[in-house]
Amino acid sequence: MTDNAFGKPPVSVLGLGAMGTALARAWLAAGHEVTVWNRTPARTEPLAAAGARVAATAAGAVAANELVVLCLLDDASVGEVLADADLTGKDLVNLTTGTPGDARARAEWARRRGARLLDGGIMAVPPMIGVPDSGGYVLYSGPRALFDTHRDTLAVPSGARYVGEDPGFAALHDVALLSAMTGMFAGVHHAFALIRKEDIAPGKFAGLLADWLVAMAPMAHTTAERLESGDRTTGVVSNLAMMVTGNATLLRTADEQGVSTELLTPYTELMARHLEDGHGEEDGSGMVDLLAR
Amino acid sequence: MTDNAFGKPPVSVLGLGAMGTALARAWLAAGHEVTVWNRTPARTEPLAAAGARVAATAAGAVAANELVVLCLLDDASVGEVLADADLTGKDLVNLTTGTPGDARARAEWARRRGARLLDGGIMAVPPMIGVPDSGGYVLYSGPRALFDTHRDTLAVPSGARYVGEDPGFAALHDVALLSAMTGMFAGVHHAFALIRKEDIAPGKFAGLLADWLVAMAPMAHTTAERLESGDRTTGVVSNLAMMVTGNATLLRTADEQGVSTELLTPYTELMARHLEDGHGEEDGSGMVDLLAR
Ligand SMILES: NC(=O)c1ccc[n+]([C@@H]2O[C@H](COP(=O)([O-])OP(=O)(O)OC[C@H]3O[C@@H](n4cnc5c(N)ncnc54)[C@H](OP(=O)(O)O)[C@@H]3O)[C@@H](O)[C@H]2O)c1
Ligand SMILES: NC(=O)c1ccc[n+]([C@@H]2O[C@H](COP(=O)([O-])OP(=O)(O)OC[C@H]3O[C@@H](n4cnc5c(N)ncnc54)[C@H](OP(=O)(O)O)[C@@H]3O)[C@@H](O)[C@H]2O)c1
Repeated sequence: MTDNAFGKPPVSVLGLGAMGTALARAWLAAGHEVTVWNRTPARTEPLAAAGARVAATAAGAVAANELVVLCLLDDASVGEVLADADLTGKDLVNLTTGTPGDARARAEWARRRGARLLDGGIMAVPPMIGVPDSGGYVLYSGPRALFDTHRDTLAVPSGARYVGEDPGFAALHDVALLSAMTGMFAGVHHAFALIRKEDIAPGKFAGLLADWLVAMAPMAHTTAERLESGDRTTGVVSNLAMMVTGNATLLRTADEQGVSTELLTPYTELMARHLEDGHGEEDGSGMVDLLAR
Repeated sequence: MTDNAFGKPPVSVLGLGAMGTALARAWLAAGHEVTVWNRTPARTEPLAAAGARVAATAAGAVAANELVVLCLLDDASVGEVLADADLTGKDLVNLTTGTPGDARARAEWARRRGARLLDGGIMAVPPMIGVPDSGGYVLYSGPRALFDTHRDTLAVPSGARYVGEDPGFAALHDVALLSAMTGMFAGVHHAFALIRKEDIAPGKFAGLLADWLVAMAPMAHTTAERLESGDRTTGVVSNLAMMVTGNATLLRTADEQGVSTELLTPYTELMARHLEDGHGEEDGSGMVDLLAR
């Protein structure tokens, strides 16, 4: 296929899970011609009804367009799906979550097969895709020229942010942000477990919880300043000794409420170790050093 | 002391760490007479310079005013500090972090000694105290009449939210919110460790990180809806099977970057266990049930 009457490049989308489906819908809605493929064919039906072309094979979906977007479960599935496809001259955009090492190896693998590869990390959940100002975006890394060529198309489902030539950089940023989110969700689930047997409505508590996390998230800037300056003590407003005592209160509360302490224990132990090593007057940024081996 | 010319009740503040100092300063700035005491006397000096009266003993600080605020390290220090004080007729406001059980026992202990007790949990860091619209507030529980009597005074350092007669409720809400925050901070520290050896400025990364956590914090509402409805599968946008695969990518990335996986492992294992039990098409809210024993 070639650019349509409106100059919008056609896109192939391989992988129609929750995320791939949202991406394909966004391009369709914006007037791009979209060719889709999915391992389980039934998932192509709603998209066909919305105007997408359906390829019978992954190789066929790749052959259909120059721009090929992958949104599969993991890096191994990308290798399986593209095993028989002719990638010569293709521009691959891999939106499958992987490690930085996966992304670097996949870029080299694509190069050997005659294709260019841009790696992406999606910082959004599917309902944010195709919604202007949702706050979601996609991180991209790889050849700058490749990003620039497809910039307008890539900006359709979500904001597009280029983070560097190193093909592993999008994945590194992506995984770092997802790791922080995973910690937050673990904390959120623990918090809901604590109130579970009490006469507190989860919906009402969720409002307090979301507001509190939003108020505390900017503490990441304080941590960054400490890491950049190396000064861990001047003007500390929440000292490690107090936090270790506070952590003990969190664990005792879990016991009182019949909630497992398994999610809180490792961080508590890390902090206690740092306190024993004489860092009680510091803030918590020293944990970063302890984690990086 | 009695109310000053402007009808502002005088306040005693025991405990002048980072938080107690911020509280005492806020009341002074608002025109309240403030009497302070701290175990280590040197910490009273800046407050004396700002106009506070200094009591030589904890018992003296309690005797000075009807309204007595405690902001000490933990519940045990509250017991020590008030051991020799005459509490008859006093209104104690305990802003020391403790468990719900601590708060209930401390309320009963105060009652036996002739005092009324309101327990509080401070949802703010010291720089937010005395700053209008900082987003910070204090949760209160205990006798409603006692809260109403001191409402205006309590609203000076930060917003004041009453959450119930059960003296343990402020602490329960407080600890639940702090537990979620602790998970978030653990995740943030892990994230900074991941980028530590790369050419990525912590300050710039902090902006991405804070924005991402702010964008994802409202997922707490989705969890609450699932807990209230009991429906874990309809319209799931991030399924457990995908998340478990994603978690493996997070752990592999930590290995690649030379970062300990200790903070991420317990949540990963909890999710993997739920997947094995056949919940792969659910969202993550089932973790709450697994945690509550
Ligand atoms: N959902 C989110 O919140 C979210 C957010 C950001 C990033 N992501 C990333 O987006 C990607 C897709 O996630 P999703 O939520 O769409 O997952 P999903 O709903 O579970 O869909 C997974 C997709 O991968 C396909 N697949 C899995 N293994 C395969 C294999 N061996 N060969 C061929 N196809 C295979 C599935 O095909 P079948 O239909 O045949 O099973 C399906 O199309 C993942 O890398 C995920 O980390 C998701
Ligand atoms: N800072 C925060 O970010 C924050 C936020 C919310 C809630 N809180 C809560 O506020 C309370 C105070 O925290 P903080 O940040 O002010 O801590 P801090 O700066 O470490 O100060 C601790 C205070 O407790 C006193 N203390 C400790 N053990 C004592 C004992 N056995 N007898 C008498 N006094 C004792 C200390 O007296 P000395 O000066 O003699 O050591 C000092 O006044 C804690 O319960 C904390 O959880 C703090």
